[in-house]
Amino acid sequence: MLLQLRQAVLDANLELNRRGVVLYTWGNVSGIDREAGLIAIKPSGVDYAAMTVDDIVIVNLDNEVVWGEKKPSSDTRTHTALYRAFPQIGGVAHTHSTHAVAWAQARRAIPCLGTTQADYCAGEVPCTAPLPPEEVRRDYETATGDAIIRRFQALDPAAVPMVLVAGHGPFSWGTDADDAVRNAVILEEAARMATLTVTIAGRDPEPLEDYVLDYHYERKHGPNAWYGQGKK
Amino acid sequence: MLLQLRQAVLDANLELNRRGVVLYTWGNVSGIDREAGLIAIKPSGVDYAAMTVDDIVIVNLDNEVVWGEKKPSSDTRTHTALYRAFPQIGGVAHTHSTHAVAWAQARRAIPCLGTTQADYCAGEVPCTAPLPPEEVRRDYETATGDAIIRRFQALDPAAVPMVLVAGHGPFSWGTDADDAVRNAVILEEAARMATLTVTIAGRDPEPLEDYVLDYHYERKHGPNAWYGQGKK
Amino acid sequence: MLLQLRQAVLDANLELNRRGVVLYTWGNVSGIDREAGLIAIKPSGVDYAAMTVDDIVIVNLDNEVVWGEKKPSSDTRTHTALYRAFPQIGGVAHTHSTHAVAWAQARRAIPCLGTTQADYCAGEVPCTAPLPPEEVRRDYETATGDAIIRRFQALDPAAVPMVLVAGHGPFSWGTDADDAVRNAVILEEAARMATLTVTIAGRDPEPLEDYVLDYHYERKHGPNAWYGQGKK
Amino acid sequence: MLLQLRQAVLDANLELNRRGVVLYTWGNVSGIDREAGLIAIKPSGVDYAAMTVDDIVIVNLDNEVVWGEKKPSSDTRTHTALYRAFPQIGGVAHTHSTHAVAWAQARRAIPCLGTTQADYCAGEVPCTAPLPPEEVRRDYETATGDAIIRRFQALDPAAVPMVLVAGHGPFSWGTDADDAVRNAVILEEAARMATLTVTIAGRDPEPLEDYVLDYHYERKHGPNAWYGQGKK
Repeated sequence: MLLQLRQAVLDANLELNRRGVVLYTWGNVSGIDREAGLIAIKPSGVDYAAMTVDDIVIVNLDNEVVWGEKKPSSDTRTHTALYRAFPQIGGVAHTHSTHAVAWAQARRAIPCLGTTQADYCAGEVPCTAPLPPEEVRRDYETATGDAIIRRFQALDPAAVPMVLVAGHGPFSWGTDADDAVRNAVILEEAARMATLTVTIAGRDPEPLEDYVLDYHYERKHGPNAWYGQGKK
Repeated sequence: MLLQLRQAVLDANLELNRRGVVLYTWGNVSGIDREAGLIAIKPSGVDYAAMTVDDIVIVNLDNEVVWGEKKPSSDTRTHTALYRAFPQIGGVAHTHSTHAVAWAQARRAIPCLGTTQADYCAGEVPCTAPLPPEEVRRDYETATGDAIIRRFQALDPAAVPMVLVAGHGPFSWGTDADDAVRNAVILEEAARMATLTVTIAGRDPEPLEDYVLDYHYERKHGPNAWYGQGKK
Repeated sequence: MLLQLRQAVLDANLELNRRGVVLYTWGNVSGIDREAGLIAIKPSGVDYAAMTVDDIVIVNLDNEVVWGEKKPSSDTRTHTALYRAFPQIGGVAHTHSTHAVAWAQARRAIPCLGTTQADYCAGEVPCTAPLPPEEVRRDYETATGDAIIRRFQALDPAAVPMVLVAGHGPFSWGTDADDAVRNAVILEEAARMATLTVTIAGRDPEPLEDYVLDYHYERKHGPNAWYGQGKK
Repeated sequence: MLLQLRQAVLDANLELNRRGVVLYTWGNVSGIDREAGLIAIKPSGVDYAAMTVDDIVIVNLDNEVVWGEKKPSSDTRTHTALYRAFPQIGGVAHTHSTHAVAWAQARRAIPCLGTTQADYCAGEVPCTAPLPPEEVRRDYETATGDAIIRRFQALDPAAVPMVLVAGHGPFSWGTDADDAVRNAVILEEAARMATLTVTIAGRDPEPLEDYVLDYHYERKHGPNAWYGQGKK
């Protein structure tokens, strides 16, 4: 079932691991088939070295397993909440990458301090509000998704494809699973640059000028993007 | 004698080295056979590249070598003190991993700032009080164990499987030698995230909400843990 | 066309990637044939793993492609601006290397704090002024080159072969593409040392004494340089 | 001539590079034959990948080349100054390793903050005073050695086998070239731990208690040292 999607999701999970943003089994990537309304996602707590395409689990948007023998990632309900709320996304990635987690633990948005971040994210990387106790009790993983969705009420998830969950870590997304992984890796590098900038310039460095931010973002992602060798 | 235990302890020592938390021969892992009351432990100052299963030394809980031609790790008396005091543990690891040492040198417990730490440790990573001069003079290595045991008078070593010895470095433990190594690696990563959080947020960042900490710890380690593919 | 130059520029781009100062396709190197007035430069957004000598594009000093089927780097107009203004240089490199970007994001010149930097750069690594909005609108990439050139009005680009563009990142240059890459790698290491020095000594560490700076720079680059095995 | 010494010095230089404390050709190691009064030292500016035993140069204590076709390291006169002043040492290493340079650039001794440093260095890693201008003019490399020697007037170079030259970087030494390299690597790690401790605890962290420092140093290096498998 959905072999091509499962293969793409397996590849994306392995790529996440190869990029050095994952320790042990801490990370998970999913991809969606919008027509079928089905999601392929990493199994819970399986070693990357041993993972095969048949370990990837298929769930529907109501979090029901519809194919596969493994249990899906314990963060599945966060992924599905994001797919339900953001119809324009095709893949979701979650990591505990070191610098992005540090900003999430500091409960601070990562300000847009330079063109590296501006090339992939149209502004700061937002940070969610803390989860209220009753939501944690009721359904923590869905509540995590809901906190992200609330934070994006005035934001475009296609232009800001990454977020920090306060006290936890980053989620990113993209056109497919592979694009979500790329955004997870770029978020970690942008977070690392921001940590160092704070070290050099003090707690509140000057953000990038809006007109440079807009220029860089449009160069790679605007309707007339001209970076790379072809249409995106 | 106890070949299987010696092999597991050798593997755990090599894994500790592979995970990048060891420089030269700075680190040691042991495992215990509770029925026999015997401990297999790394030899002192032997290169990881040349270490074989027959270099692993067997000692009893009174620190006497009962098998092997090598001298056991110079930290052996700390390991045995922990095995005597914590009957629920099956393996002990000691490293000089960089960030964990930095917190030990700063003589600060690592506050629980996020879910990464909460997934493996039910709260802060405690830090011991300094050793009094007369204890250092009498039996330093046993005194190191005693300082840890004193620090754990009100703590459950199964729920908090890691500690910092002030001015020295980390010890961790677990169900067996391999589990102790995993906790050593995770402690180093949690320490690194905490160093960066302090850089971003200042000397005293806000700790993780208790109800999120409890949720994350229970998800992986509680009586009804549901992370991974089976019963722990 | 200009096969030897294209090969040298390909090698320099691959070396930039191998040295760990590039993530994904974020970096570009060019080299010039001064007699022909032609520049070989990396194509835009092509993976390093797949790049061949025939992907390298030849442009003239007016930014026109004169050979090759790929689109040249989106930063081409910055490279050509530098070649037009600095007749003594033979190669240009641009990266988003982490620590150099952090200083650029902090909008601070890297002070010359020690002999490591003095060996390759006769003083601080300067930082440009922000670009005015109208220049960004008109021609951002040329404006980036112009900001560098303005910053060098009283500086010798042969003695200071590196610069930070505020809010963006580093450019470096040299006698050829390979030398420009070496300066990019050295700039990243000098920036990393400076970040750490600021951590240890506070926001404004004492710069290297002028007479030591001069001595070190001359030892490697002066008319009577005696470092290495022969004439430079 | 002195083939065995040259081989040991070649191996030590390659080991320095393998340990990741060297960028390009920035580092040099030498060893001495005390009976012959001759020193084997790395050639100046030769790539590690291409270096052979015949590139290693033999000089005497007056800095004269007595064997070899290459020019010796540009830091040779610092090495010979140390061999003349410290008769108990058999090898010298110099690097620009990142964290040790950062402390040298901060012009601060590395306080002994923990047992990791105490195991190899009987106290803080001292830092030299700045070189006066006339000494730099006259003979910079010998002056660098002299600054170290002045700093050690009340110190035992066998117990403190490492130093920072203010605004420059570290020198270390040992019983032979290999031991000098080990001390260079350990100094870098101790410096890194100290940088992080300062980040966590503030600019002036509490040093290790003297009685723990003494215990650890003696355990590895005292007349009754019992670390490792045999007599040192």
